[in-house]
Amino acid sequence: VAAKLTGNACVGQSGGPSVVINQSVVGVIEEARKHKKEIKSLLGAVHGTKGIMVEKFFELLRIPQSKLDKIAVTPGAALGSVRHKPNEEDCAAMLEIFKKRDIRYFFYIGGDDSAKAAYIIQTMAETSGYEMVVVHVPKTIDNNLMESDHTPGFGSAARFVANAVRGDELDNRSLPGVKVNIIMGRDAGWLTAASMLARQNEGDGPHLIYLPEAPFTPEKFLDDVRRVFAEHKRALVCVSEGIRDPGGKLWAEIAGIRLYEGLKDDAKNLMGKPKKDAFGHFQLSGTGVLADFLTGLISNNTDISRVRGDTHGYLQRSFPGFASKIDQREARAVGRAAVKWAYQGRVGSVAIKRRPSKVYKSFLDLVDLKLVAGLNREVPKEFICPGGNDICPSFRDYCLPLVGGLPETEIFENIE
Amino acid sequence: VAAKLTGNACVGQSGGPSVVINQSVVGVIEEARKHKKEIKSLLGAVHGTKGIMVEKFFELLRIPQSKLDKIAVTPGAALGSVRHKPNEEDCAAMLEIFKKRDIRYFFYIGGDDSAKAAYIIQTMAETSGYEMVVVHVPKTIDNNLMESDHTPGFGSAARFVANAVRGDELDNRSLPGVKVNIIMGRDAGWLTAASMLARQNEGDGPHLIYLPEAPFTPEKFLDDVRRVFAEHKRALVCVSEGIRDPGGKLWAEIAGIRLYEGLKDDAKNLMGKPKKDAFGHFQLSGTGVLADFLTGLISNNTDISRVRGDTHGYLQRSFPGFASKIDQREARAVGRAAVKWAYQGRVGSVAIKRRPSKVYKSFLDLVDLKLVAGLNREVPKEFICPGGNDICPSFRDYCLPLVGGLPETEIFENIE
Repeated sequence: VAAKLTGNACVGQSGGPSVVINQSVVGVIEEARKHKKEIKSLLGAVHGTKGIMVEKFFELLRIPQSKLDKIAVTPGAALGSVRHKPNEEDCAAMLEIFKKRDIRYFFYIGGDDSAKAAYIIQTMAETSGYEMVVVHVPKTIDNNLMESDHTPGFGSAARFVANAVRGDELDNRSLPGVKVNIIMGRDAGWLTAASMLARQNEGDGPHLIYLPEAPFTPEKFLDDVRRVFAEHKRALVCVSEGIRDPGGKLWAEIAGIRLYEGLKDDAKNLMGKPKKDAFGHFQLSGTGVLADFLTGLISNNTDISRVRGDTHGYLQRSFPGFASKIDQREARAVGRAAVKWAYQGRVGSVAIKRRPSKVYKSFLDLVDLKLVAGLNREVPKEFICPGGNDICPSFRDYCLPLVGGLPETEIFENIE
Repeated sequence: VAAKLTGNACVGQSGGPSVVINQSVVGVIEEARKHKKEIKSLLGAVHGTKGIMVEKFFELLRIPQSKLDKIAVTPGAALGSVRHKPNEEDCAAMLEIFKKRDIRYFFYIGGDDSAKAAYIIQTMAETSGYEMVVVHVPKTIDNNLMESDHTPGFGSAARFVANAVRGDELDNRSLPGVKVNIIMGRDAGWLTAASMLARQNEGDGPHLIYLPEAPFTPEKFLDDVRRVFAEHKRALVCVSEGIRDPGGKLWAEIAGIRLYEGLKDDAKNLMGKPKKDAFGHFQLSGTGVLADFLTGLISNNTDISRVRGDTHGYLQRSFPGFASKIDQREARAVGRAAVKWAYQGRVGSVAIKRRPSKVYKSFLDLVDLKLVAGLNREVPKEFICPGGNDICPSFRDYCLPLVGGLPETEIFENIE
């Protein structure tokens, strides 16, 4: 692809939003404004690929900086998002619209599915001889993109989770019982692992942490809870929504389907039929079924009287005013870098890498779309304790710089 | 009761914690330190009345201010809390311990149940001729104490809820659907009402708000959701955990019991048996059953594809670092005032009142324990819209000063 293509540009957002996804949009806008000679107009695609296919765009280059600065700190996808995996046909249709509108640069902000869409479009453009540059801008609270040290959105979500779990430990210490928290992350447990940052003193919760990466069985879980409760007279448990049985089946799905099928016919209207989302995934978020299943397990099989479950839900990715500063900065930077590289004619996915140094330092790289598209990066084994029920202390060194400091808390030791 | 009793003092915390309940403990300590001649020692009761009955105390007067300042901003009950409504026998036992330990001042931090315990103990002391002063220090995120304009803990919880719902509106705008949020408040809808502060622009959610104070029917709810969804192509709904049917029965209880009883016998182990908490109340928090019931209603009775429910849970009362500044200040002040009044020999419950003025101004009063003990202050009719499905704009004037500012957010109008 020749450098410095002249024409229009397009930017879109995809998948579950984060509190810093708009930093990346603003980064794209800021950098694009510097190249007005080549980039004539920058079109925001409303609701990502959905908007492209119906040509729902609006111009972003003339929006005042004061507004952009506010948009940047606003959670949610300011351009609207979409949950749709475009197939080849969709991508071909989009390419036709890009051609028609002389769009030579396409920036797609999202996770591995968005990288895949970017990859398909880029390949089609090349095949058809249409000169354009597609750059994937990383975004996912799940932190599961290959080739990255971490992803924009993760640090802030991890900060929310660690702080929420710290608060919950203090609450559960006040009124001791078993507390189960369900944390987002279908295929990778990074965000659930971040709950370990809530530990401040010896004996602090979370006392047990379960990720999708380690098989989960109710028997082992009950043993773990009983042991922790016997030792601490309370137990704080963090569980990924994506925990699976040894066969790889999601427990949320097993529990949801068993519960629904366990209902007598005239009671089936009492709960929504377990369903799949737009990606064909079983719906994990926006339901309390996994927490209720796990607390039910404990209530039905132990004599612990206070057992509570919370599903942290959408707050993890949308709570305003609590972002990680480093995450905000990096999310802005990946947007800017995408335009810089595109302007140089370089295609790919922007990845954050970490320098090996005592003080946290990161740098940006542009990696092959193919190496990211549709792939999942799991939490490596060395961060997961052998029993599969906890996270190793070394994870703190990895995660804390991304989260930044947490609000300080203090306790009277005398109440234990 | 004679003024300036000499002897020991005791302070305890009760009920569900808040993020400012420790401000009140620290306020009590700070003021007690000023009266060392009369108040020889200040005993922290570990887990409230439970600790008193087994004489589990520790000395608070010698804790350094630097530690107290950190305790003050820490969520949870630093002394430990308790969910136990002491009966006459318990109170008599506590009075004996107070006599034995020469405790002449008792400060009990909690809600209406704690006011009741304080009232019983005070009355017993008077009857038995034991000179002591009992002061109830208000605390409840539920904001439901009689004689108060508002209660310490409410402003911060309301700030969390309003901000969480603002974030959720931005998320639901990104990926439009119906989103139901369950918010704490068994007997009064103050905290759920605070979700209305999340509205920033015309058409913003929450679009529907339901409180325990207005009867809730599934039919009306579905009509409301259908209407809002037709108008906005999305619907953000905030629902109190305490919503009731026209007969006054809790929907969470109805749904939980119906679901459990709807299960075939061999499937009953799939959920915990619906149960009552230590107060004999049906357990509302720490379960997703109400959200799942309401989202099931929508999924089963409309063709809306994206329907999600979150139960905000314990985060509302325990999230560190996000308190309302005014709430923090007032919570400290009620602790100090309690000691001042007690030192003057005055018995009662500390209440925050509001001056009628344009700029927010509050003052403290000491009210009769009897007027607070065991009573519930509902959201007045004038704040609830006639349909029982929304909160009037005037509530903003009442609530916003207690919450303080919220993080600013901004949107592109073009995506609607």
